[in-house]
Amino acid sequence: MFKSLYEYDFPKDLKKMTFDELDLLSYQIRDFLIEKVSKTGGHLAPNLGVVELTLALHFAFDSPKDKLIWDVGHQSYVHKILTGRAKGFDSLRQYGGMSGFPKVCESPHDVFDTGHSSTAISLAMGMSVSRDLKHGDYNIVAIIGDGAMTGGLAFEGLNNISESGRRVIVILNDNGMSISPNVGGLAKHLRNLRTSNQYLNIKKTAKKVVDVPYIGDSLYKGMRNAKDHMKYALLPKGILFEELGLTYLGPVDGHNVEELVNAMQAAKKINGPVLIHAITKKGKGYRSAENNPDKFHGIGSFNPCTGLPNPSKGISYSSIAGDEILSMAKDHDDVVAVSAAMCDATGLRKFADKYPERFFDVGIAEAHGVTFSAGMAVSGLRPVVAIYSSFLQRAYDQIIEDVCIQKLPVIFAIDRAGVVGADGETHHGNFDIAYLSTMPNMTVFTPNGEKQLREAFRIAYKLKFPCAIRYPRGECPLDNNAVAEPNCISENTVIDLTKYATERSFSGQDVDIWAVGRMQEKAKEIRIILEEKGMSVGIVNVKMVKPIDLSEFDDKAKIIVTLEDGTLNGGFGEQFSSKLYTQRIDRDRFENNQTSLISKDEYNNKVITIGWPDKFIEHGDVKNLEKKYSLDAESIAESIERKYSELNLKR
Amino acid sequence: MFKSLYEYDFPKDLKKMTFDELDLLSYQIRDFLIEKVSKTGGHLAPNLGVVELTLALHFAFDSPKDKLIWDVGHQSYVHKILTGRAKGFDSLRQYGGMSGFPKVCESPHDVFDTGHSSTAISLAMGMSVSRDLKHGDYNIVAIIGDGAMTGGLAFEGLNNISESGRRVIVILNDNGMSISPNVGGLAKHLRNLRTSNQYLNIKKTAKKVVDVPYIGDSLYKGMRNAKDHMKYALLPKGILFEELGLTYLGPVDGHNVEELVNAMQAAKKINGPVLIHAITKKGKGYRSAENNPDKFHGIGSFNPCTGLPNPSKGISYSSIAGDEILSMAKDHDDVVAVSAAMCDATGLRKFADKYPERFFDVGIAEAHGVTFSAGMAVSGLRPVVAIYSSFLQRAYDQIIEDVCIQKLPVIFAIDRAGVVGADGETHHGNFDIAYLSTMPNMTVFTPNGEKQLREAFRIAYKLKFPCAIRYPRGECPLDNNAVAEPNCISENTVIDLTKYATERSFSGQDVDIWAVGRMQEKAKEIRIILEEKGMSVGIVNVKMVKPIDLSEFDDKAKIIVTLEDGTLNGGFGEQFSSKLYTQRIDRDRFENNQTSLISKDEYNNKVITIGWPDKFIEHGDVKNLEKKYSLDAESIAESIERKYSELNLKR
Repeated sequence: MFKSLYEYDFPKDLKKMTFDELDLLSYQIRDFLIEKVSKTGGHLAPNLGVVELTLALHFAFDSPKDKLIWDVGHQSYVHKILTGRAKGFDSLRQYGGMSGFPKVCESPHDVFDTGHSSTAISLAMGMSVSRDLKHGDYNIVAIIGDGAMTGGLAFEGLNNISESGRRVIVILNDNGMSISPNVGGLAKHLRNLRTSNQYLNIKKTAKKVVDVPYIGDSLYKGMRNAKDHMKYALLPKGILFEELGLTYLGPVDGHNVEELVNAMQAAKKINGPVLIHAITKKGKGYRSAENNPDKFHGIGSFNPCTGLPNPSKGISYSSIAGDEILSMAKDHDDVVAVSAAMCDATGLRKFADKYPERFFDVGIAEAHGVTFSAGMAVSGLRPVVAIYSSFLQRAYDQIIEDVCIQKLPVIFAIDRAGVVGADGETHHGNFDIAYLSTMPNMTVFTPNGEKQLREAFRIAYKLKFPCAIRYPRGECPLDNNAVAEPNCISENTVIDLTKYATERSFSGQDVDIWAVGRMQEKAKEIRIILEEKGMSVGIVNVKMVKPIDLSEFDDKAKIIVTLEDGTLNGGFGEQFSSKLYTQRIDRDRFENNQTSLISKDEYNNKVITIGWPDKFIEHGDVKNLEKKYSLDAESIAESIERKYSELNLKR
Repeated sequence: MFKSLYEYDFPKDLKKMTFDELDLLSYQIRDFLIEKVSKTGGHLAPNLGVVELTLALHFAFDSPKDKLIWDVGHQSYVHKILTGRAKGFDSLRQYGGMSGFPKVCESPHDVFDTGHSSTAISLAMGMSVSRDLKHGDYNIVAIIGDGAMTGGLAFEGLNNISESGRRVIVILNDNGMSISPNVGGLAKHLRNLRTSNQYLNIKKTAKKVVDVPYIGDSLYKGMRNAKDHMKYALLPKGILFEELGLTYLGPVDGHNVEELVNAMQAAKKINGPVLIHAITKKGKGYRSAENNPDKFHGIGSFNPCTGLPNPSKGISYSSIAGDEILSMAKDHDDVVAVSAAMCDATGLRKFADKYPERFFDVGIAEAHGVTFSAGMAVSGLRPVVAIYSSFLQRAYDQIIEDVCIQKLPVIFAIDRAGVVGADGETHHGNFDIAYLSTMPNMTVFTPNGEKQLREAFRIAYKLKFPCAIRYPRGECPLDNNAVAEPNCISENTVIDLTKYATERSFSGQDVDIWAVGRMQEKAKEIRIILEEKGMSVGIVNVKMVKPIDLSEFDDKAKIIVTLEDGTLNGGFGEQFSSKLYTQRIDRDRFENNQTSLISKDEYNNKVITIGWPDKFIEHGDVKNLEKKYSLDAESIAESIERKYSELNLKR
C-alpha cells in the first residue's frame, strides 16, 4: 500500500527511493495532478511533462542548498508536491490559496518568483556570481523550455553564461512546444537533435560521461578537448550550444528518471556551464492532454474522465477580437496578424487557418513581434499584433522606437488587460494604460463589450497610425448590430474621434462616473446602488484614454469619479484630472493634435480616482481581489457616498 | 584630378567605377569623414570601419529599389555620402541640420529610422513579408554589427528569419566591438571564425560560389546539400548560423570592395536567408580611431591632426556617478556593477579596472543585464546597473517582473536622462520618470549636481529596495562637501526620505517652482528674471519623484509651477497635481507607504506643468531644442508671467 502524497516527508523521502519506486511515484503524481487541476484549473500539460524531470532534479540535487530556478514557473507543480506543498493543491491559484508559480514566500525551495518567460539563465548567472564571490559550493540549475529559448532574453543569458565559464546547469526541457508548437531556426535544430541516432544510444553515452571522475578544471579541459575531437563523430548536433561555449549533454529521455539522474550527476562534475537536453512530451500520461497540449497548457476546470472542459460562460473578448481581426483580413488584403506563441489564446486560430500566409507566430519573442510588424507596416502592410498586456511589456522599447517614432500603422490587440485573476502578480495587465499613454503618436482604445471592441478595430484600421486596443480577460458582453460601421467614420472616411472616444449613457447632478473599458459594466451597478440611496448619477463610457476626450464633460456634477481596471499611478484618472486642473504652457502649439478633442483648462469640482493601488496584486479570482481592494460595486458606491459626505456636498 | 564628393551623382556614378577607382574613393571618403566629424563631432570610428562595405553595398545593390537597413544607424554616414548628402555633413547632428542616423524623411535611400540596436533583422523580415505578399522582386539587406548581435532582439529575428526561408541578406559587420569590446559566447565563436585558415582562402571560395548560376530553388537546395557535405571540410565554423538555418558566406575581408561585392552577388543568388560575415576594423584608416575605437565611437569635436578631443566643459554626471559607485564598492563588499556595452560612457572604467571580478559588461543586452542583476540581488549582492535612460526602455518588463515584484535591492544608475541633444529622437531619455513612477516598489531619485547625486547613491544603498537614480548628460555642477553622509540617514540608519526628497531653497508669495533634477539650475535663472520684474518666487528642489514628497508644500504661493526634463504625459507634474487635486479612495490603506511623506488631499490654487510635450523631440543641441519648445529660462519666465496675468492674479 502506497502512502498518499500528503504523508511523505519530501524531498527527503525521495532520496531514499529506488528508480522503480520513483517510477511508481510518477504515476501517483500524475493521478494527483489530473484530479486536482481538473477541479481548480491550472497549467496541466506543462506539469505532466516534467514529472520525471522534477523527480530526477530532487533526487540528484539537494534543494534548497542547490538552487532550482523554474523558467516561467507554471511547470513548478510537481516541484511544489515534492517540497511539501501537496496540500496546497486544493486551493491552487485561488484567492488566498497556493500560487500556480514559484513564490519565495511559500517555500525556501522556491528561489525566485518567476512568471514571464526566458529569465532563468540570466537569474542563474546572477546567482552563480553571488555564489562564486562568496566562495559557496552548491549547484545552480535553470530549467527552461524550448519555447522559452526563442525569447531573446534567454539567448542573452546563454551568450553571457557561456563566456563567463561559471558553473551553471541549464536543463533544456524540450517538448517541441511553447504554448503553441515551437517555431524558428533553433526549434528546427532541436528537432534534428531529437531525431538523431544519437538519441537512441544515449543511455550508453550518458553512462560513459558519468564514469569520468571529477578532478576539477584541468580534467574538464581535457574532456573538452577530447570532446572537441569526438564532436563531429559523437555529438555533431549539440554543436550550436557547444559553439556558444556550453558543454552539451544529450539528448536524454526526459521521462526516464535514471537517465536524467545520470546526466545530472555528469553535469555536476563539469566545471563550467553545461546544458542537458531533455526530451519530454507535453501532457505526458494523460491522453487528452497529450493530444491537445495547447488546450491543456492552461485550462479551467474539466471532467477528468472525458478531458472535456466544464462549460464556460459565454464568449470571450479574445474570441470576438479574433473574429473581428479575421473579418478585417477578409475586407482588406493588407491586414496581417502576429502572435507571440499564443495563436489560440488570442483568438487567432481561424485567421491562421484561413490566411496562413498572412499569419505569423513568432514564438515567445514579443520584441521581435513588434519590430517585425514595424517592418511590415513601413512597407505597406497593416499588422495586427495580438499580445497579452503583461507580455507586451517585453516590447515597450520597440513600440516607442520602431512603431511610434515613425507613426507606423500597427494595431496592438492587447488581450488580458487589467487584473486577470488566477495567474497573479506577474500576469495582471495593470500598467498598459500608463505606459502606452506616455508614448507620443499612440492612440489607446479601451472598449467594453462586443460593439465597442469591433468598432475600435475598424476605427484603428482607418486611422493609419499606431493604435492600441486593450480589452480584458473573460466574457465579452454581446451586442446586436455590433457589425455596423462606427458612426465616427464619415462617408469620405474622415474620422471624428469625439464621436467615438466617450459616450454618455446617463446624466447626473451629484456624481458623474467616467468609466474606462470593462468598468463601464461596474458603473451601471454602482449607479443603481447610489440612485437607490437618492443620488443622481451620470455615466460616461470612456472608450479611449489617449487622446483624452472631454466633449462629454459636465461640470454640473458635484463629484466626478474616474473608474479604471489598471494602476492609478499614471493611469487614466491622473491624466484626466491633470487635464482638468493644470495648465500646460504652449500645449496646443506642440502637442499632437490628432483629433479635435475639446480640452478644458479650468475646473474646480472634485475628482475621485478609482483603480488599482500602487501595489502588485496577488492571485485569486477577480471578484475576491476587487473586494479586497474595495473595487467591487458595493465598496465603490459606499466610498463615493462617504467622500460625498466628507466633502459636505448636498444632494 | 578627382571630383570632390559634392560633385558626384551618387549612387549612380559609383556603379560605373572600377574597383581601383572605388579604392581611391574610399580614401577620399575617409578624409572627408575625419575632417567633417572633427568639427561637428559624431560617430567616427563605426563609419571609418564601413567605408568599403558601404561602397560595395551601393555597387552590388540597387538602392532604393533594394532596401538597405542599417542596424542602430550611426554607421550610416558613408551611406549618406553615397546617396547625395555629402553637403549635409557641415550641419551633422546640429539643430536643424542632418541627422546622424537614417531618416526616412531625409532620403528615399533611408528605409527605416533606426537608432536602438539589434532591430535590423526583424525589420528586414517584416519588409520581406511585404515584398513576398506583393510579389515584389528586390533585395532586402540588413547590416548589423557583431555587438548588436548580442542583443536578444537580433537573436529573435535570426531565429524567425531562418525558419521563414525568406530571401533576406544579413551582413554581419564584425569588428569585435560593440562600443566596448564585444562579449559573450557568440563573440568567441566569431573570433574563432576570424582566425580560421578559411579566412585566408576566402577569395577563392567566394569566387567559386559566385560562379554557380542562379537557377532558383532547386539548385539552391542542391547547393545546400553540397554545402552540407562540405560543411565540415570547408566551412566548419559558420555552423552556428548554418544550424540556425541561414546560409553562411565568409568570412570576407570587409575592407576589400571586390571581395565584398563578390560575396554580395553570391548572396543575391541564394533563395533564402543568407549571412555574409565581413571582418572590419573599427576606426579603420585613422590611427587614433584604430587605437581607441571606443573613444572614437561617438566623439565630440577634436583636432584631426593629433586625434585629441577639444577641451570639454567640466566633469560629467557620468564621471561623478562612476566615482561614487566605485567609492560604494570600496566601502561595501557586496556592491557589483553592471554595464551594457558602455563601460567608459557610464563612467565605470575605474570600477572595472579596480574590481574586475565585481564588474560585468553584459554587451548590448539590457534585459539580461537587469534580470542578471535581479539574480545577484536575490542572493545577497547589491548590483548597480548603469544604463542610459532610452536604452533602459529595453528592460522595462524585467524591471517590473524581476526586480520590483520581489522588491529586490537593485540600483539603476540611469544616465542620459531627459533630452540628450545631438543623437535625437531615438536617444532622448524623456520617458523614464513616467514609466518608472508607475512601477510599484520603485523609488525614483532625480538629483541635480554632485552633492545630490552622491547622496542619492548612498541613500539608495541604505534603502535596500529598487531605486532608480536618473541624471542628465553633460556637465555636473560640483559641490564642496559632496562626500558627507546624507542628513536623512540617522545614526541607527533609519532613513527619513522627507529630509532628502525635497529641499526648499527660496520662498515666494507669487510663484513657487518645483524643479526636478537638472531643472533646478533653470529654476534659479527663471527666478532671477521674474524677481527682476517684481515677482516673489520660491524654489523647491525636487530630488525624488517617487514617492512624491509634499512636505515643502506652501499653499500661499498663487501659482505653483512644476518643471521637469522629461515628457509631461505621465511625468512629475501630472503626478504632483493629481496628488494635490484628486481624492483616491482607500489610498492609504493599500498603497506602498515606503516613507512617511506628507500627502495633501485638497488644494485650490493653480498648477502649471512645464516639461517636454507629447512629441518625439528632434536632434540638435539642448539649448536650441529648449528654445524651440519654449523651455529656456526666458521663455518659461515669460509664459509664467503671461499665465499669471491671464489668471488675473495680483502681485
